[in-house]
Amino acid sequence: MPATSETLTAERILEATEEVLRRHGPAKATVVDVARALGVSHGSVYRHFRTKAALREAVTKRWLDRATQELAGIAADAGRDPEAGVREWLAALFAAKRLKAGGDPELFATYSVLAGEAGEVVSGHIAELTGQLTAIVRAGVEAGVFAVADPVTAARALFQATGRFHDPGYAKEWERPGVEAEFEAVVDLLVRGLRR
Amino acid sequence: MPATSETLTAERILEATEEVLRRHGPAKATVVDVARALGVSHGSVYRHFRTKAALREAVTKRWLDRATQELAGIAADAGRDPEAGVREWLAALFAAKRLKAGGDPELFATYSVLAGEAGEVVSGHIAELTGQLTAIVRAGVEAGVFAVADPVTAARALFQATGRFHDPGYAKEWERPGVEAEFEAVVDLLVRGLRR
Repeated sequence: MPATSETLTAERILEATEEVLRRHGPAKATVVDVARALGVSHGSVYRHFRTKAALREAVTKRWLDRATQELAGIAADAGRDPEAGVREWLAALFAAKRLKAGGDPELFATYSVLAGEAGEVVSGHIAELTGQLTAIVRAGVEAGVFAVADPVTAARALFQATGRFHDPGYAKEWERPGVEAEFEAVVDLLVRGLRR
Repeated sequence: MPATSETLTAERILEATEEVLRRHGPAKATVVDVARALGVSHGSVYRHFRTKAALREAVTKRWLDRATQELAGIAADAGRDPEAGVREWLAALFAAKRLKAGGDPELFATYSVLAGEAGEVVSGHIAELTGQLTAIVRAGVEAGVFAVADPVTAARALFQATGRFHDPGYAKEWERPGVEAEFEAVVDLLVRGLRR
């Protein structure tokens, strides 16, 4: 059913954009392609996204944010033991990335190309994730479980030291046997480093 | 001066191969290209390297090994404090990679392509490096400074957790301001994790 200007929401446009990307790869997803898929004029799409770049950034942000909600829940749970919180948050990030990469490898590759172009969207995403990790580390310091001078620095170090288990550039490694044990060994060492 | 079959050594062929790669990029460095650069017949080159693949693997191994000697010296120094050993070894690896990437970016890019093709050469290189790190960790356990259940597992975790600071895929990050502080924060956390 074609969208009308009343039913055409930003979310509907982004869904259609992802479908265009899925079918035609990262070079596509221009405003005109998306308008055609929705059966609307490109003017209707431009009312929501003023440029092709804005549309591509918005769909990339939507893709990146998809994993973030579950992680935010772990970070916000004040009742959780801080060490378990760090472990569960890092494991949930790894699981979410693996699921995306393994579940639909072509779409994952397409979004990896888009993310490479959308520097600010990606740095915003990373800032949000390290912010969540900072909250867990800070709670651990306040509870007297962790001893680190600066939770922001420690959270960034945790995020960067586990890059092999969430950076899309390593996606091929995530299917290798033994990768779970490698992840556990890195997290064990890091969590020991946080402790008082 | 053209090489004669008496003066033509494997090392001389590998030097010429690197020069061919430097001038013409990763697609080149066939046995014929290298023979032409040396002014010898391709048969003379084939006496040292039986296939194009063998030549490309040998020149890649030579490039990867160039940094390894200094690192081996750090790992073998039994008199060094183990914690200082881990820090210095990781810092030397980072410095060596940065120097290669920054000093001759095109040759670095060329060798990154070659390394991507030479899976066994690269895994041999990584095995050698983690072996050195294992020796330092084991010495720390024996001295009662480090408390880890398995030095091999811990060394692999150290190597993987610092990938951002030696994996060629991150070379662009190495020029950003603040990368030194990021490296220090990751190493601090890891070394704390090793301690008894």
